Amino acid sequence: MRFPTQLFATISISPTRPKTLLHLRRFLSSSIAARIPPPMAASEESLRQALAEKQSAVDAQADAVRALKARAGGAAQAEIDAAVEALKALKVEAGAAARRLQAALSNNGDGAAASSREAFRQAVVNTLERRLFYIPSFKIYRGVAGLYDYGPPGCAVKSNVLAFWRQHFVLEENMLEVDCPCVTPEVVLKASGHVEKFTDLMVKDEKTGTCYRADHLLKDFCKEKLEKDLTLSPEKAAELKHVIMVLDDLSAEELGAKLKEYGITAPDTKNPLSDLYPFNLMFQTSIGPSGLSPGYMRPETAQGIFVNFKDLYYYNGNKLPFAAAQIGQAFRNEISPRQGLLRVREFTLAEIEHFVDPDDKSHPKFVDVANLEFLMFPREEQLAGKSAKPMILGEAVLKGVVNNETLGYFIGRVFLFLTRLGIDKDRLRFRQHLPNEMAHYAADCWDAEIECSYGWIECVGIADRSAYDLRAHSEKSGVPLVAHEKFPEPREVEKLVIVPSKKELGLAFKGSQKMVVEALEAMSEKEALEMKATLESKGEVDFHVCTLGKTVSIMKKMVSISMDKKKEHQRVFTPSVIEPSFGIGRIIYCLFEHSFYTRPSRAEDEQLNVFSFPPLVAPIKCTVFPLIKTQKFDDVAKIIAKSLTAAGISHIIDITGTSIGKRYARTDEIGVPFAITVDSTTSVTIRERDSKQQIRVSIDEVASVVKEVTDGQSTWGDVMWRYPTHSAAHTEEE
Amino acid sequence: MRFPTQLFATISISPTRPKTLLHLRRFLSSSIAARIPPPMAASEESLRQALAEKQSAVDAQADAVRALKARAGGAAQAEIDAAVEALKALKVEAGAAARRLQAALSNNGDGAAASSREAFRQAVVNTLERRLFYIPSFKIYRGVAGLYDYGPPGCAVKSNVLAFWRQHFVLEENMLEVDCPCVTPEVVLKASGHVEKFTDLMVKDEKTGTCYRADHLLKDFCKEKLEKDLTLSPEKAAELKHVIMVLDDLSAEELGAKLKEYGITAPDTKNPLSDLYPFNLMFQTSIGPSGLSPGYMRPETAQGIFVNFKDLYYYNGNKLPFAAAQIGQAFRNEISPRQGLLRVREFTLAEIEHFVDPDDKSHPKFVDVANLEFLMFPREEQLAGKSAKPMILGEAVLKGVVNNETLGYFIGRVFLFLTRLGIDKDRLRFRQHLPNEMAHYAADCWDAEIECSYGWIECVGIADRSAYDLRAHSEKSGVPLVAHEKFPEPREVEKLVIVPSKKELGLAFKGSQKMVVEALEAMSEKEALEMKATLESKGEVDFHVCTLGKTVSIMKKMVSISMDKKKEHQRVFTPSVIEPSFGIGRIIYCLFEHSFYTRPSRAEDEQLNVFSFPPLVAPIKCTVFPLIKTQKFDDVAKIIAKSLTAAGISHIIDITGTSIGKRYARTDEIGVPFAITVDSTTSVTIRERDSKQQIRVSIDEVASVVKEVTDGQSTWGDVMWRYPTHSAAHTEEE
Repeated sequence: MRFPTQLFATISISPTRPKTLLHLRRFLSSSIAARIPPPMAASEESLRQALAEKQSAVDAQADAVRALKARAGGAAQAEIDAAVEALKALKVEAGAAARRLQAALSNNGDGAAASSREAFRQAVVNTLERRLFYIPSFKIYRGVAGLYDYGPPGCAVKSNVLAFWRQHFVLEENMLEVDCPCVTPEVVLKASGHVEKFTDLMVKDEKTGTCYRADHLLKDFCKEKLEKDLTLSPEKAAELKHVIMVLDDLSAEELGAKLKEYGITAPDTKNPLSDLYPFNLMFQTSIGPSGLSPGYMRPETAQGIFVNFKDLYYYNGNKLPFAAAQIGQAFRNEISPRQGLLRVREFTLAEIEHFVDPDDKSHPKFVDVANLEFLMFPREEQLAGKSAKPMILGEAVLKGVVNNETLGYFIGRVFLFLTRLGIDKDRLRFRQHLPNEMAHYAADCWDAEIECSYGWIECVGIADRSAYDLRAHSEKSGVPLVAHEKFPEPREVEKLVIVPSKKELGLAFKGSQKMVVEALEAMSEKEALEMKATLESKGEVDFHVCTLGKTVSIMKKMVSISMDKKKEHQRVFTPSVIEPSFGIGRIIYCLFEHSFYTRPSRAEDEQLNVFSFPPLVAPIKCTVFPLIKTQKFDDVAKIIAKSLTAAGISHIIDITGTSIGKRYARTDEIGVPFAITVDSTTSVTIRERDSKQQIRVSIDEVASVVKEVTDGQSTWGDVMWRYPTHSAAHTEEE
Repeated sequence: MRFPTQLFATISISPTRPKTLLHLRRFLSSSIAARIPPPMAASEESLRQALAEKQSAVDAQADAVRALKARAGGAAQAEIDAAVEALKALKVEAGAAARRLQAALSNNGDGAAASSREAFRQAVVNTLERRLFYIPSFKIYRGVAGLYDYGPPGCAVKSNVLAFWRQHFVLEENMLEVDCPCVTPEVVLKASGHVEKFTDLMVKDEKTGTCYRADHLLKDFCKEKLEKDLTLSPEKAAELKHVIMVLDDLSAEELGAKLKEYGITAPDTKNPLSDLYPFNLMFQTSIGPSGLSPGYMRPETAQGIFVNFKDLYYYNGNKLPFAAAQIGQAFRNEISPRQGLLRVREFTLAEIEHFVDPDDKSHPKFVDVANLEFLMFPREEQLAGKSAKPMILGEAVLKGVVNNETLGYFIGRVFLFLTRLGIDKDRLRFRQHLPNEMAHYAADCWDAEIECSYGWIECVGIADRSAYDLRAHSEKSGVPLVAHEKFPEPREVEKLVIVPSKKELGLAFKGSQKMVVEALEAMSEKEALEMKATLESKGEVDFHVCTLGKTVSIMKKMVSISMDKKKEHQRVFTPSVIEPSFGIGRIIYCLFEHSFYTRPSRAEDEQLNVFSFPPLVAPIKCTVFPLIKTQKFDDVAKIIAKSLTAAGISHIIDITGTSIGKRYARTDEIGVPFAITVDSTTSVTIRERDSKQQIRVSIDEVASVVKEVTDGQSTWGDVMWRYPTHSAAHTEEE
């Protein structure tokens, strides 16, 4: 089926791509909240209804009381008293209804659950900040919103995650890794569409000039109304919920109209707001001293790969498929960054661009991942209001839920990558983009979403972007970014040939001749064949010439249109690109949340924090503790430390006299998986962080045992089996 | 000796640091040419002298001929002919003298040697570009000066260099690695001095607006004159050489004056040039949407560490010394980048800030490096016009050539780092900064310079920057960045107490009282004690109050000055910082040059390029080649590839039918150290790149043998000893 499709694509002389709205990758930029409509809780709706009814009863009774009191000549006092009593009773009922609604709202995911999520997040974040996993950047200068440093343990986790990424993707898949600058000239980002379209809509406080993201204001308004305004009618509540749901799809006009309709003002000052205008999210700068070369800090690393396609294709021996990869900083000048490490102004991206023949998206290693089963959330399930469900990847591709094998292969590899890092597979799902989320040219997109205290967070985007990016740069640069398929033997193809008669056209159109010739030559195959048919039947045809802004009459003698047969030796085509794009900082933050737990100390007087990082990502693999402060144990500890260094195992040695329990607790809190305690000069114990089990190992062997379990050659279970367990001699409470 | 010094330092109430010119680190920015005066070649000087003499003889004789011809009545023809003959002879001599000078100049390092260096560089660069080690960034858009991408093999070399850096420094020395953003708010770079001082002097073509670096123009002018203008007098030549030598030390005024004096114009158009003005080398941007928060792309990574000092010190248990490290991008908006990969607008820095007690710069591990011997180039040798000489590091520290042990330790570790990467130790020297190169506050600075085709290139700067950076940020932020030393028991210290009598001062100075009080309180210990002595002897003293701009008379009753004894429990001080700063891109470029060689093919009809990277940095460790195209060899190759992947060894498999010799050559050219050739189904050969020796190893063992030699556990010599050598069965020429 492949040949005819391709033939068709190569036929037109001047393909004109429809100028549709460019849909930029909004990875890491689109609203974090999933777009799946949460069905409005039945109880909430009926409670709002009940409250509204009670309230109107109260209003009606109040009117009645007023009417009685105002009646000419006066109503009987008894009658008035009875009416007032009834009003009081109704008010009590209305109050009860309001309290019931309030209670329902605070149990509603946004209430009790939210506050427990909030408390959990606070515990994680406190530990992370106290142990310097991360630090608000430039803290002594009161920081800058959306910029964070990784401190020592955070930096080690990040470098472990990146090393594993490089191992899992670049090395195992033989990808071509490149490293391009962050500073990018304007022309590149004009071609990609970022200069024109990479914007958020902003409004300003008209008096103070403070800037706000327009969608944030609308969302906050709706949420606040829904949570606090008990008099909201069920219809109004439904409307506000709908607004939150479709927020990302509103046009600038619709968003502006909503802000006006709801009378939204600046949150801090209540001042009126300016009209909305687009704010480009790229950090702008100027390259060189002249001020004439605008540049930007790249908003993604992908463009550096696309512009190198030609060289990389050559490097790969002019063969498809191949993948290029890049790890690096990307920049996004957010209007008002919120949500801590999840929405930042500078972040590390790791991106893969897998170039493939659009007619053959099979993958030879797909079998290796076909049996994986995990949570998938196809478009249909989302639209039907259902939840994500476990699916076998091979079946998802077979049934066409996932568009093709290569896309499926990467989904599987991403699943393995994330779960091996320590992401909980029950809080990881692959969500397919809804039609309105996807660019017009995209074949299929899936996001790896990880659930954390902020909700489901998009951490990896896996998109089949078809030929869009390469075509954009081909057009702008004039350098064809294409691949070639040599045919084993030449093939006969039909090719459209349009030959305008310059002489006839000159006579007919004089000065406009050139425009008519160009318009004729630019016709698509379909247009040309229709013209040919009309000319043959009627000898004349109306033809609209854009550049003249008018319709002219073309006679048969003015143009010859034919399909010529031709031998072709190769097929030239623009490859499709399948792009897995990883937000490294988001993955790390989710990993922090998934790894964090607390347990009581032995004395049970306090909660101890633990990060259960797998050895692969643990910032430090091992500690060395002399049990008590004595020279001979210190000496043994130093010998062991040296052998750990030689084995390339990051470790810390703590020879303070602090109690062993405190030392364990201190290192559990930064996720060190193994602790070596020196309690003799011949053998030592190794303690595993989560089980707190200990084994006894000779000093000579200890480094190699730790290496085995941190490299992943053995599990803790394996070595527990081989070495004697050590029970409770130096326990946690010491 | 430590206590009294420190006491003194803590005495003054308000230490006022002299406001001297801030000397920013110009690492990677200062002129690449070493500043050592090359003694003018004696022959050159005498040749210029000889030429000048011949030329004046020619001029004199020409005058004589003209005088003869013009003589009233006419001279005898014979006399004229003789004079003309003499003139001709003199011209021939002058011509010969000119040719001798020309020949001397072109042998002068700038001539023949330069052109052979140029040819070598061209061969390296051609190979690097052809094999995609690097690519001019955004090539399809005609690139941007000073921006380069690393293509696949370059990127792999870079990531190997960085991994080894992390191993060699961060892990082995237990450094605290951090990762801070590139986007930096202005306040931080104001404190560091970059906003004010990080500039190059620029001039513009007055008509076209093209920008030039002023020092480049002056240098190019001088070099061109020296090379091309044979009529230059020896004095003028010496002057121009002197200008080149002191170029980096010229003030803006001096530089401007020289440009005017020499009548230098725009090189391309010969248009007049504008006055010079400073151009800040930082890429400027704006943080957030308001346009009110200026920011810059960091020019170095060090500031991110300094601003975090307080947290890092706490993280280290409030103990000194400790080191923090950072690897990351830095940006420098060069006016006109030249010299390829050596002067770029965006580059990777790896920086270490080792914080140490200024009174104790010993280093416990100094013994580990004390016996190293390598080329050092102390200040005295440079000023005496000598060359670098081999020195034993321990002796250099002992003799005070290197200021302290910690600085010496890092010099030694840098030497080990660079030579293990493959830098030729004979083309590596450590050059001490001359007094005029060093900041006023710096204790000592050494640059690791590597010789390549561009000359000696500064690749690592190792500076003892004393307390400068932490003090600057303390002052600007108001957050004290200090360390504490708790005394085992309280110490009695003398503390200066200045108590101005506000009453008396108020009576005497009325409205100016406040300024006088502040000036008195701000006195240094020395000033205060002098004042006390004068007041006691004379009862009155003249005192200059800056803020009033005048001198006032202070009477004894107006101020009490005393030294109070006080118990102190700790010492509070600003740590010194010793900073090794690595230009990773420069190191990699020098490594490319040092690793490159050519050798004839067996057929001797062409030169083959080889990069002799050690396995540590080789972009790919190993290739797998089935000797001939057959299914059973392909299958074996795939099994071996799988076991290499499992062992974490990067490799490529080439099952094209290309001749084995061609396949070897192709991978020698990207520096792959080992090639596995499958020529049977039970055992294979391993070939080493540089010796081209081969051994035979069984298929089961091959991955572990390659791992041994690439991990550095064994050398090729070791394994040669253990396995049978394989001779010439499949030779290079096949």
